[in-house]
Amino acid sequence: MLSTQPYKGVRDFYPDEFKKRQYIFDTWRSTLVKTGFSEYDASILEPANLYTEKSGEELGSKQLYSFTDKGDREVALRPEWTPTLARMVSAKFGEIAFPLRWFCIPNCFRYERPQKGRLREFWQLNADIIGLEAGLSDLEILRVLSVLFESFKAPKESYSIRYNHRGLLDMWIVNEIGEDKKQQVYDLLDSWKKLDDRERKETMLEQGFTSEQSQKIQELANCAGLSYETYLTYSKNFTELATIQSTISEICPNSNFIFDPTIVRGIAYYTGLVFEAFDENPENSRALFGGGRYDNLLELFGKHAPAIGFGWGDVTMGEFLTNWDLWPSFEEKTTTGVMVENKESIPELYTKILPELETKGVTYIVDYDTERSENKRWQALKKKGCGEIIKV
Amino acid sequence: MLSTQPYKGVRDFYPDEFKKRQYIFDTWRSTLVKTGFSEYDASILEPANLYTEKSGEELGSKQLYSFTDKGDREVALRPEWTPTLARMVSAKFGEIAFPLRWFCIPNCFRYERPQKGRLREFWQLNADIIGLEAGLSDLEILRVLSVLFESFKAPKESYSIRYNHRGLLDMWIVNEIGEDKKQQVYDLLDSWKKLDDRERKETMLEQGFTSEQSQKIQELANCAGLSYETYLTYSKNFTELATIQSTISEICPNSNFIFDPTIVRGIAYYTGLVFEAFDENPENSRALFGGGRYDNLLELFGKHAPAIGFGWGDVTMGEFLTNWDLWPSFEEKTTTGVMVENKESIPELYTKILPELETKGVTYIVDYDTERSENKRWQALKKKGCGEIIKV
Repeated sequence: MLSTQPYKGVRDFYPDEFKKRQYIFDTWRSTLVKTGFSEYDASILEPANLYTEKSGEELGSKQLYSFTDKGDREVALRPEWTPTLARMVSAKFGEIAFPLRWFCIPNCFRYERPQKGRLREFWQLNADIIGLEAGLSDLEILRVLSVLFESFKAPKESYSIRYNHRGLLDMWIVNEIGEDKKQQVYDLLDSWKKLDDRERKETMLEQGFTSEQSQKIQELANCAGLSYETYLTYSKNFTELATIQSTISEICPNSNFIFDPTIVRGIAYYTGLVFEAFDENPENSRALFGGGRYDNLLELFGKHAPAIGFGWGDVTMGEFLTNWDLWPSFEEKTTTGVMVENKESIPELYTKILPELETKGVTYIVDYDTERSENKRWQALKKKGCGEIIKV
Repeated sequence: MLSTQPYKGVRDFYPDEFKKRQYIFDTWRSTLVKTGFSEYDASILEPANLYTEKSGEELGSKQLYSFTDKGDREVALRPEWTPTLARMVSAKFGEIAFPLRWFCIPNCFRYERPQKGRLREFWQLNADIIGLEAGLSDLEILRVLSVLFESFKAPKESYSIRYNHRGLLDMWIVNEIGEDKKQQVYDLLDSWKKLDDRERKETMLEQGFTSEQSQKIQELANCAGLSYETYLTYSKNFTELATIQSTISEICPNSNFIFDPTIVRGIAYYTGLVFEAFDENPENSRALFGGGRYDNLLELFGKHAPAIGFGWGDVTMGEFLTNWDLWPSFEEKTTTGVMVENKESIPELYTKILPELETKGVTYIVDYDTERSENKRWQALKKKGCGEIIKV
């Protein structure tokens, strides 16, 4: 006998779970369309070298679902959306009228140990503006994120959107710590919130930071002290960041935007603004979404267009909506029972009764079993949730 | 430099192509919801034995995308939906209130040579009624198919829905040809429309049919002669078929239903009514959809529930809509250009102007480039299709 279990780390969406997923997708979709984005899509199968030719990332190797097809092609299930976007934009580079505002809701696959908030298959909203240099399009993306949270009716205290700037962070590291330590500082800040104070100190010692350097990193991460003051001074060099800092609370009064130097975004390709959102409920500790500016998006294809975008996953978002009791009540349609008493009336049933119920937006259950007693049929239809029962 | 081509036999859906696909999906979805079906879904990854343990089918071997995952599990990309449905229903067999009316729109993968109407990845509406024995639920499914064509505004002359009955066909073969020839008759009828008269005769000769048997098969396939008369007489043994034959034209006056003994449906699991729809434009020769009754659906999982359903693919359906000029006009939203003249007005732009445009359902393109001449900016926005242009 075959097992009825799905493959490890993926989900079955029965109608009740499907409704929830669809609510998330519909809310994303209607908000993005409203704010001027166009939807697009591609296959989940991609040539494997789209992921393996990028410089030494985790996704390029052990987390990638890849295999050789029957025609000896190396093929992969996409682990993330961005390379597909880069491929598609590059393929029509000459014909496309920039700026693009594009979004999609693909599923992605990563081979990893399934755990809370992290599965082998997840769905992810991806939205990008391509063809506008750093500047006000950065603000536009942040505003879209705020409008998205409003669409989910998320109260201001339920989440924070934290942002930083990779150019600024690089400037600070080069001037205050030393360029040779760049990757270590990145990694350290990236894991900062997951470590306790002792672990942080141990890590800095292991990495060979001097006590002066450790002090500076701590000040930066804690947003306090001289190092943080220096950081703020440097930030004036990045005009899009200065604009965000001075206007964001006025533009998005319903969202809590926080400037946070520990936001790094592991992935190498970010070049400017970076951001992540967090559920304020600490049980849901993984980022709800993340993104930023990545002006080298098309580099692998020998093209250039500045870009900013984000990815927002369905798994942590579902947990967020549960934590804050934000699921809508999924109204069941009224169900009408239709009891066939006379087989002669079948044409009437299909040409008149059912079309009328459908026009009214009523669901129906038809009981054709004329052999059973009327009483039993009545009770069975009632048990299945039928309000009204019609006899034909 | 990486290639910008997608993987062989799959499609990129740029916004224009996406709109078309979405029109098909939305039409399927709204019609199925209206007729009382609930949507559900699963992952495209399934344990490979879900397909390989079935008795010797084409899908079980050379067309299946399967591979070994990094944890030594045999995993497959689903080549069809039905085994997943069987798995999901079996998993909750005790809790589910039958009858189920479920539908989904999954993508499926088959390793084959890409050709007209046939790709390595296709999307397919799957709708099933589970838990009702052969009878009026067969008629209900046929009516849903007719309503679906109406939703696409397909004229009656553009398509035909052809149906047959596997129990009837078996009865005829056993009585008129001989049980030992069952599979050969199946295969012959299945390929009947693709062969010309000479090829048919050659095949029958090769298969060792006597000239009397060949005569009978020809009469049956051509719906003429004594053998076809006998077939019609036998058909009275199958009450659901008799009901369909006597009422379908009254119930579905806008669809052309044709009783056609050559409809077999290759797949082994059908047990009763079988049907396929065809574009009347011979250029689009593959079936638009196919389905039937398969009461042994849950057999692999040691359960039993009668079922009837169908699968309707997006590729041939797109060609059908093109052939008969049935695509709707995809109205572009009006686009308003917003020219930022004064960076001080940014908060107003985001808190007032854009929300107003969004409420009106208008798309916008914001031009932030205050350095350029007003005339050039105006012309650029006009070129991008902006009707109105607002300055802020």
